[in-house]
Amino acid sequence: MGAPGKPSPLTSWNDGAAKSQILDFVARVTQQGGPDFIPPAERIAVFDNDGTLWCEQPLQVQAFFLIDRVKELAGKEPTVKERQPFKALLELDLKTLMGLGKQALLELVFTTHSGIREEEFDPIARDWLAKAKHPKFGRLFKQCTFQPQLDLLKFLREKDFKIYIVSGGGIDFMRACSEEIYGIPREQVIGSSNKLRFEVNEDRAGLMKLAELNSFDDREAKPQNIALHVGRRPILAFGNSDGDLAMLRYSKTGKGPRLALLLHHDDSEREVAYDREFRLSPLGEALDKADAYGITVVSMKRDWNIIFPTAS
Amino acid sequence: MGAPGKPSPLTSWNDGAAKSQILDFVARVTQQGGPDFIPPAERIAVFDNDGTLWCEQPLQVQAFFLIDRVKELAGKEPTVKERQPFKALLELDLKTLMGLGKQALLELVFTTHSGIREEEFDPIARDWLAKAKHPKFGRLFKQCTFQPQLDLLKFLREKDFKIYIVSGGGIDFMRACSEEIYGIPREQVIGSSNKLRFEVNEDRAGLMKLAELNSFDDREAKPQNIALHVGRRPILAFGNSDGDLAMLRYSKTGKGPRLALLLHHDDSEREVAYDREFRLSPLGEALDKADAYGITVVSMKRDWNIIFPTAS
Repeated sequence: MGAPGKPSPLTSWNDGAAKSQILDFVARVTQQGGPDFIPPAERIAVFDNDGTLWCEQPLQVQAFFLIDRVKELAGKEPTVKERQPFKALLELDLKTLMGLGKQALLELVFTTHSGIREEEFDPIARDWLAKAKHPKFGRLFKQCTFQPQLDLLKFLREKDFKIYIVSGGGIDFMRACSEEIYGIPREQVIGSSNKLRFEVNEDRAGLMKLAELNSFDDREAKPQNIALHVGRRPILAFGNSDGDLAMLRYSKTGKGPRLALLLHHDDSEREVAYDREFRLSPLGEALDKADAYGITVVSMKRDWNIIFPTAS
Repeated sequence: MGAPGKPSPLTSWNDGAAKSQILDFVARVTQQGGPDFIPPAERIAVFDNDGTLWCEQPLQVQAFFLIDRVKELAGKEPTVKERQPFKALLELDLKTLMGLGKQALLELVFTTHSGIREEEFDPIARDWLAKAKHPKFGRLFKQCTFQPQLDLLKFLREKDFKIYIVSGGGIDFMRACSEEIYGIPREQVIGSSNKLRFEVNEDRAGLMKLAELNSFDDREAKPQNIALHVGRRPILAFGNSDGDLAMLRYSKTGKGPRLALLLHHDDSEREVAYDREFRLSPLGEALDKADAYGITVVSMKRDWNIIFPTAS
């Protein structure tokens, strides 16, 4: 594909259908004068984060952050340990936790992410991310990104794509690291968000994070939030669960060339193999109907020759 | 300020305090190694639209669009003419219309901007904007932009600022023309928005604009929406009414160098002179407290040597 002398892109991807489709798609939409040419301004790509750009097992990264925040809280208010959903979280009793439902999980998020000023949250998340390690892989969470995706982001940027993260994760949590780990600036991160209250204290205006949901950026909310934040239908979308299906179909069924990709975690040796079973956002319909919906399934095991970045 | 041989920026601005403050501010924050240097990624500037970037008298541009949409509707459903708020709008009875309050105005917006797919709205707005003329100035509405502001946008872009529109106007209406008239891409437009419903028809996924408010982007909602969409506190803000005051103070009271600007329409000869009186968003507190809040008042009469772009 590349010009002579230029290193070929996506070296972390094995040759095969998925890699070919990506390279072909990008070649077509960037070929000036070609029938499928799309101007740079319209080259919008959207990526889910948890399980798509970085590891989400045994829990999403933000859940580990929550645990540490709840532990801090429990240190100050010991009764917290006896109350659900805090108890289940501190005991890592995932079955009970999942059984409590999304509302309980939201309570966890609100308790640990609200009542502070918008700008106070960022250093808390950054400090945690600078030190916190994955329990199984023993590396910093922020190094639990997938190297083939980092290569894909870089390749798309070189081809003048504008890349957005569109994830169920907390918008402020992701913004605390998106530039550093993915090269994606804060304003290109769309996620779940709290409501904010505007207030002026001692002549300084600011925003207080409230314990009230503004948007849970999952399923139908993903295309809705893309329309709100971007105002353009993406031409490329990458997800890994049924929570991404609305976004994948919204992107894929626009006019002209489109590419929708679905990561299948099928590599128990190098990462984790999972899809339908016990998890917050299962992968069922998106996998079963991938062919019918024109979605390209990416197999971690088959399509990627490396998973995590090598230590630098 | 400029390098020798380079044309000086902001030639449409008269020399004076406002122009000096803008030039000084931009020089300080862009001076590499200087004490006030701000990296390009953080150079966020926010502009209100109606009355700040283009004319909003005798009515906001989008109100004229509404009138034409309601006329179309009245052609199909004649009883519409007898019902408020449609009657007042069609009779241009502004006093009655304003007296009906914001809720009635929202009904107008919903009736004329909803029940269609997200992507169907754009060509409707574009077609209207290609032809509709201002009743007093006799020029296309999209040429009722303010030349000194176009020059300021260009200057800021050359200095690596990222510019957002943050306006009470409809987000989709502004996005239909922001790139063409201001050079501001769709994703850098924040405005009032309807809720959207995700739906799949005949295998094509899309979003339906609903007759339900998502956000009325005025007053406190402006900083709230800036935090949601951008995730950074702006370093420069420009408005023209009390509806912009929260955004101006949010921007101005951040740490480090900041510039907040307020346009005062005091030029009855070349445009319109108005501030406190009868209008949807009056200008009172922002003008009275400008000094106390550190807001720079820009006088259209004194600071601008041209108002509208010359015909090209």
